[in-house]
Amino acid sequence: MQWTKKDVLDIESLSVDEIEFIFETAFGLREISERPIKKVPTLRGQTIVLLFLEPSTRTRVSFDIAAKRLSADSIAIAAASSSIVKGETLIDTARNLQAMKPDILVVRHSSAGAPHLLARNLDISVINAGDGMHAHPTQALLDMMTVKENKGRIDGLKVSIIGDIAHSRVARSNIAGFTKMGARVSVAGPPTMMPAGIEQLGAYVAPDMDAAVSEADVIILLRIQKERQRRFLFPSEREYAARYGLNAARLRRIKPDALILHPGPINRGVEIAPEAADGPHSVILDQVTNGVALRMALFYLLAGGVRDANVD
Amino acid sequence: MQWTKKDVLDIESLSVDEIEFIFETAFGLREISERPIKKVPTLRGQTIVLLFLEPSTRTRVSFDIAAKRLSADSIAIAAASSSIVKGETLIDTARNLQAMKPDILVVRHSSAGAPHLLARNLDISVINAGDGMHAHPTQALLDMMTVKENKGRIDGLKVSIIGDIAHSRVARSNIAGFTKMGARVSVAGPPTMMPAGIEQLGAYVAPDMDAAVSEADVIILLRIQKERQRRFLFPSEREYAARYGLNAARLRRIKPDALILHPGPINRGVEIAPEAADGPHSVILDQVTNGVALRMALFYLLAGGVRDANVD
Amino acid sequence: MQWTKKDVLDIESLSVDEIEFIFETAFGLREISERPIKKVPTLRGQTIVLLFLEPSTRTRVSFDIAAKRLSADSIAIAAASSSIVKGETLIDTARNLQAMKPDILVVRHSSAGAPHLLARNLDISVINAGDGMHAHPTQALLDMMTVKENKGRIDGLKVSIIGDIAHSRVARSNIAGFTKMGARVSVAGPPTMMPAGIEQLGAYVAPDMDAAVSEADVIILLRIQKERQRRFLFPSEREYAARYGLNAARLRRIKPDALILHPGPINRGVEIAPEAADGPHSVILDQVTNGVALRMALFYLLAGGVRDANVD
Repeated sequence: MQWTKKDVLDIESLSVDEIEFIFETAFGLREISERPIKKVPTLRGQTIVLLFLEPSTRTRVSFDIAAKRLSADSIAIAAASSSIVKGETLIDTARNLQAMKPDILVVRHSSAGAPHLLARNLDISVINAGDGMHAHPTQALLDMMTVKENKGRIDGLKVSIIGDIAHSRVARSNIAGFTKMGARVSVAGPPTMMPAGIEQLGAYVAPDMDAAVSEADVIILLRIQKERQRRFLFPSEREYAARYGLNAARLRRIKPDALILHPGPINRGVEIAPEAADGPHSVILDQVTNGVALRMALFYLLAGGVRDANVD
Repeated sequence: MQWTKKDVLDIESLSVDEIEFIFETAFGLREISERPIKKVPTLRGQTIVLLFLEPSTRTRVSFDIAAKRLSADSIAIAAASSSIVKGETLIDTARNLQAMKPDILVVRHSSAGAPHLLARNLDISVINAGDGMHAHPTQALLDMMTVKENKGRIDGLKVSIIGDIAHSRVARSNIAGFTKMGARVSVAGPPTMMPAGIEQLGAYVAPDMDAAVSEADVIILLRIQKERQRRFLFPSEREYAARYGLNAARLRRIKPDALILHPGPINRGVEIAPEAADGPHSVILDQVTNGVALRMALFYLLAGGVRDANVD
Repeated sequence: MQWTKKDVLDIESLSVDEIEFIFETAFGLREISERPIKKVPTLRGQTIVLLFLEPSTRTRVSFDIAAKRLSADSIAIAAASSSIVKGETLIDTARNLQAMKPDILVVRHSSAGAPHLLARNLDISVINAGDGMHAHPTQALLDMMTVKENKGRIDGLKVSIIGDIAHSRVARSNIAGFTKMGARVSVAGPPTMMPAGIEQLGAYVAPDMDAAVSEADVIILLRIQKERQRRFLFPSEREYAARYGLNAARLRRIKPDALILHPGPINRGVEIAPEAADGPHSVILDQVTNGVALRMALFYLLAGGVRDANVD
């Protein structure tokens, strides 16, 4: 297959073949991180800008390490220090960065659609590292990659996503991705955190938590955001843990070969009990390891034209 | 020509020949950023410290990319995290950094003269990346480089600088630079934003905005800083745009081959209308591209002795 | 000697032979920073994470430069941007980082014991870059290295540490280090800043400041922290300078070959007079230079297994 897309903005705009090709590339690149010298010269002399206009550690670090493992130069720009605060428009900021001749722009932004706006206005490749409540495609890709690695397939699996579905870009991208790859996706969580029209996204609401947990091949737990929780009148972390957390009691009822995923950072004892996070079903740390490989794959594919021109 | 200066602190201390030599070097290095592998090993193993004690994104990123394109290692130190806040003197901070054996120190500071103070007290090269309301020599050099690229010369041109001249280090360095290179520089803007004794700097106050705009070969618009605007009792952005902005009406009266420059970030609709910023006269993004090349040139020249010792 | 330790957490867990071996390695690596190309490929393809959960400039920059001089990739994570603020546990943060396959984790933390906790829970090497009021082993090692360089030995020397001993991790690690290497360590400072049971640490309280200063071969001055000073009811900086500062009068009474050390940043005129900081006895900037070499040595030794596998 030949990669042709300029940008990676959301799951919806990727084909099944493209997603499979990304996985294949990522599995191939993953062993670089296991080598004694965990670095290849593939993207030497490429400049990757990490424009993170919303706080993030793990995603930024994952992209940064991915860039370095391919020998690209990465430049991180964080919210606080950005010209954004000086009133410049996002497009002007991005055009300015583009004028410094980077090759790839990774952007995280609190507004849905910001990466798409940039992609339309820039010649360079744009990767969406999370935009508002809209999409987080690299998270969904690494989640699917982790399932594929552990299950050998995605097609035909039952996937349960549990938590604040309505406000989660991770949920939205995972629903789009897993349904596209042939899984059947249900969602569960407090009624105030369920989105309207979930069926239009291709998912359905699980009848109850027991069904959500006990019938799933893949359980994806979302992080409970305390600020939001308060706003949505959800009484307490304790009550959330009892009603929707993957606690010890529920853990005993999951399928013997079920996988537990979480995008992190986890709230131990709230949405996930320690025995679930640290037990044999958990692939949470695999997600992190695969995240680096997945992002290496995207850099590699998006820089493809350049790569072909410079065999070294 | 042989480069001999240890530091680049202001335009005043550079000769015409040195400025021409910087341009020549920068034009030569600029194409590196257009290559598939946009990196040369010239400054491999050199350490460049970017000490930014005043917020900045674009200038810092420009220096950082310039360092990486020459394979130097760059270390960025921002205001918030600095020991400065612990009460250490600036010279002590700098001496400490010097003891870690960097090769070049780039410094931005809110106090005029801070880079000069450091240059006198350090053996390593110092580049002024902006000091208070005093100087911003790399901005003036890249502005002049952009004019030279587009006009073929600077000598004999009419340059209009419009905005808050009194408080702008960009204005001050550009007046020094363009007059030194043989241009005739006028300034325009609200009376409260005109400095006393502008003639001593070699510039003159334009009789009115129409003259400033319609007679210029080069129009440099300065960013209006909202906080300052209020302090200087300037009524509103709207009124500024009407009286001193390069709006659509004024744009129609500029010379057919006039250039429009702006150091960025721009306030669209205030000091510059979108049709001026994005139109054919604008070389604003060229300035950004040239900024990287110009800073590569300074690194290259200042590291000269080392370079000669290590042909690889 | 063969290096076998996985981590460097405190001075107490290093043997005399190990400390000597670190010095030897550091002296050998120090000249790299004096070369025209101050970089060796030894740790190319290694990833070093600098997790600084307490503000720091100089220590972080020193580790960062040390990593770059060995060609390792370094990733700095600062407190503000960390997931820690989102409520994740420190161990979860560290396990997540470990899943990205770094080789060495350098950690600074406000809680005593945090690096030890991480070392027990991680397979990768951990270096303590300062934990609460507990330990700062790299500072003590570079202090001892600087004394060894200038005196040729540590054994048998009289070392005076002056300042807020009770709350200083630098003091604690230096007491442990210098006594282990055969020096005799006394402490001096305001009574409210003396710890209980100093004898158990192997040091003794100097009878008075005159003895502390005049009999010492090595004088280590600690930084006075203004916030703490207030809390401990110490009247004023001026009074501190008079009673416990190394001022001009006391400077005249030190031994002709005494060394003056300070971990920085210095408060000129408070704990140290300018003539002491800048005079011939001062080795304060040597400490900074040696700090880079010392940290290079630790990286080099901890990455040893990897290094042997990859001779290039």
